[in-house]
Amino acid sequence: MTRQEELAVDLISGVWESLKAVRERSPLVHNITNYVVMNNTANALLAVGASPAMVHAREEVADFTAISQALVVNIGTLSPEWVEGMQLAVHSARRARVPWVLDPVGAGATRYRTSTAAELARQAPTVIRGNASEVLAVAGEAGATRGVDSTQSSEASLEAARRLASNLGTVVAVTGKTDYVTDGSRVVAVDNGHPLMARVTGMGCTASALVGAFLAVEPDAVLAAARALSVLGIAGELAAEQSKGPGSLQLHLLDVLYTLDEDTVRARARVR
Amino acid sequence: MTRQEELAVDLISGVWESLKAVRERSPLVHNITNYVVMNNTANALLAVGASPAMVHAREEVADFTAISQALVVNIGTLSPEWVEGMQLAVHSARRARVPWVLDPVGAGATRYRTSTAAELARQAPTVIRGNASEVLAVAGEAGATRGVDSTQSSEASLEAARRLASNLGTVVAVTGKTDYVTDGSRVVAVDNGHPLMARVTGMGCTASALVGAFLAVEPDAVLAAARALSVLGIAGELAAEQSKGPGSLQLHLLDVLYTLDEDTVRARARVR
Amino acid sequence: MTRQEELAVDLISGVWESLKAVRERSPLVHNITNYVVMNNTANALLAVGASPAMVHAREEVADFTAISQALVVNIGTLSPEWVEGMQLAVHSARRARVPWVLDPVGAGATRYRTSTAAELARQAPTVIRGNASEVLAVAGEAGATRGVDSTQSSEASLEAARRLASNLGTVVAVTGKTDYVTDGSRVVAVDNGHPLMARVTGMGCTASALVGAFLAVEPDAVLAAARALSVLGIAGELAAEQSKGPGSLQLHLLDVLYTLDEDTVRARARVR
Repeated sequence: MTRQEELAVDLISGVWESLKAVRERSPLVHNITNYVVMNNTANALLAVGASPAMVHAREEVADFTAISQALVVNIGTLSPEWVEGMQLAVHSARRARVPWVLDPVGAGATRYRTSTAAELARQAPTVIRGNASEVLAVAGEAGATRGVDSTQSSEASLEAARRLASNLGTVVAVTGKTDYVTDGSRVVAVDNGHPLMARVTGMGCTASALVGAFLAVEPDAVLAAARALSVLGIAGELAAEQSKGPGSLQLHLLDVLYTLDEDTVRARARVR
Repeated sequence: MTRQEELAVDLISGVWESLKAVRERSPLVHNITNYVVMNNTANALLAVGASPAMVHAREEVADFTAISQALVVNIGTLSPEWVEGMQLAVHSARRARVPWVLDPVGAGATRYRTSTAAELARQAPTVIRGNASEVLAVAGEAGATRGVDSTQSSEASLEAARRLASNLGTVVAVTGKTDYVTDGSRVVAVDNGHPLMARVTGMGCTASALVGAFLAVEPDAVLAAARALSVLGIAGELAAEQSKGPGSLQLHLLDVLYTLDEDTVRARARVR
Repeated sequence: MTRQEELAVDLISGVWESLKAVRERSPLVHNITNYVVMNNTANALLAVGASPAMVHAREEVADFTAISQALVVNIGTLSPEWVEGMQLAVHSARRARVPWVLDPVGAGATRYRTSTAAELARQAPTVIRGNASEVLAVAGEAGATRGVDSTQSSEASLEAARRLASNLGTVVAVTGKTDYVTDGSRVVAVDNGHPLMARVTGMGCTASALVGAFLAVEPDAVLAAARALSVLGIAGELAAEQSKGPGSLQLHLLDVLYTLDEDTVRARARVR
C-alpha cells in the first residue's frame, strides 16, 4: 500500500472506532439548540449511544456545561435570553475544557443572526458546522443566505472555510453534497449522504449534534467531525434506500444509527 | 358541460397547479408558531416543496418577513414576547405585501388568547384558518372553546365566518369534517380529509402552514386556501389508508405530501 | 382465590377500566412541559384518548388550569418565566381541586434544577413521577444525577420515595426496570416496559403526562399512576416487538396506545 492508501484505510477505520467509543462511553452532550429540532437532535444522540440534555437558562447553563463531555450551540431560533445562555455555556466550556460546536443556522439571513453567529465564532469553538451559505456569511463573505437552506455549494465555500479556520484557530465543517472539514491546512472530504435528507428538517442540526458526541471521544477535531458526518451520511443513505419519502427517512435514520455495525460502516464510509 | 360543471373542473385543476407551483418555486415560508408543532410544520412544508423557517425574536423578525414569500402566525403557545414578535412580523408583512395567515389556536379558551387572536385578526390577515370554535371566538360569538379541540361543527360557524370575512375584508377558512373557505361572498367547500388526522397533534397548524405556502404562489386567497386544504386532506386520506394508528399516519402523511402526483390529486380532490 | 389473588385481579382489571374511562371522557390535560417532548407528549395523550393542551404564559396559565381535568408540570427546559407560569398553574390547580403531576426532570444535575423541583414538590402535587436519581435528589438524598438519565435503580430509591411521599402527603412514582408507586404506606409495582424505550427521548415525560390523564378519571392516585405506567409499558413492549430501533418504536408506540384492546391489556398488565 502507498502512504496515501494507508491514510485512507486509517480514515475509514476511525469512523467505526469513534462510533464504537460513543456507544461505549455514552458522553453527556449538552445542547442549546432550536425549538424545531430539539426532539430529533435528542433522538439522534440517543440512537448513536450518547446521552443528550437540553438546558438553556442562565441560572444553570454554566453548571450544566461543566459536567458535560461536549456542548453544542445552535442559533436556529435565537433570542437575546437564549444568546445570553449560549455565552455563559461557552464561557464555562472554555474554562472546563469541554469541546464545543457552533451551528450558525441561517447566518446571513438577517443582521442579528449574522452578528450573533460571528460573535460566537470568535469565542474559539472547537468546530463550526454549517452549510456553504452560513460559512460564507460567518467568514464575512458575500454569502447570499436565503432563509435557512443553502444557496451555495460546499465547494464554493471551501476557500472561505479554510481562511475562517486559520483566522480563528478552529475547525470548520461545511456540509453539502460533499462535506469538507478543515483546520485551515488539512482538508478531509466526506462523500456520504443522500439528497432526500435535505427534505427532513434539522438534518444539519443533527450533524452538529453528532459532531459534539464524536468530539467527546476523539480529541482530533478534524477527524471527529469527519467521522460524525460520515456516520450520519451512511445512516441517511441506508435509510433513504428503505424510504418512500421524508417521513419514512426520519424513522429509518434513527433505526440505522442505532443498529449500524462495523462491516457496514467500513463498507460504506467515504472519507478521504 | 354546464357552467357549474366547468367551474368544478377548474377548482380541481387548480389544486394540482398550485401544488406544482409550490414545488417549482419553493417559496420561503416564515413561521412564528407554537413549540408543539414546529417540527411537523417544518417537515410538512419541506415535503410539499416549500422552504420553511422559524424566526420569532423582535431583533430580526421584521427583517426575515421582508425576505419571505409568506408569513404564518400561530398563537398556540403564546407569550407577550412572542406576541410582540408576531406584531412586528405582521407589520413587516403588510408593508412588504407578503401574504400572511393567522391561526388563532385555542381562541375562546382564555381571555388572553381570545383578545390576542382578535387583535391580530384586525391586522388584515390574508387568511384566518381555524376550527369552528376558534372562528366563533374570534368572531365574537359565544364560541364554547374547550382547550384546543373544537366543540363545534364547521357548518355551525360558517355564518360567523362569512361575517368575520366581510367585516375584516379577509378570507376565513374553517376546517372540520368539511372545510369552508370564504371571503364573505364566495364559499368554497373542501371534502377531503380523514378522522384519524384529528388524533395527530398540530394537524390544524400544518393546514395553516400549507395555506401560507399556497398563498405564495396563488394570489386569490380563497383558492389558495381551499387548494392547500384539499392537498392536506388528500394526503391524510391516503396516509390513513396505510396506517394502523396516529403514529403511522404522521409518517405516511409526509411521504404522501412528498410523492403526490397529478393523477392522484385530480382523482381525489373534492373542492366545490 | 386468596385475598392476595383477588387484589391482583382487581389491579389488572383497573388498568383496562381506567384506559377505557380516558377514552370515553377524553379529559383535557394541561401540560407545562419541556420543548423537547411537547410533540410526543401531545401525541401520546391524543393516542390514549385524552385532549392535550400546552399553555405556559403567566397571562393565561391559571385560567387554563381551572378548566382542565389534570395538570402536568415538567421542568425539563425550565427558565424563571416558565417556573412562574408553573407556580401560577399549580396554585390554580390546588384552588380548583385539579389533580396535578410533577415531573422533576434532571433534578440533582444543577442547583437551580434541584431547588426548583423541591419547591414545586412542596406544593402538594398529587403525584411526583421521576426516575430514581430525580426522586433521590428531590428527597434530599445524595442522588448522583448525571444529566437527565438515571444512574440509580428504581429499587435503590424506593425507600426515599416512601419517605418523600409520607413527608409531603403525596404519591411518588419511581420509574425504571420496575416502576414503584407509593403513598408512603402502600407500594404498587409495575413490571411492564422494554429497554428500547430508554432510547427514545421523553419517554419519562410521556409517562408523567399519561399519569395526568389517568388522574382525571381515577381519584385514587396510587392506582391512577400505576395504571398509566402499566399502559405505557404494555404499549412499549408491543411496539418494541415490531421495531428495529428507536425510530420505529416511537411510531408503533402511538399506534399501540391508540389501538390497545381489553384482552391485550388484561393479558399483559403486570401490576402487583
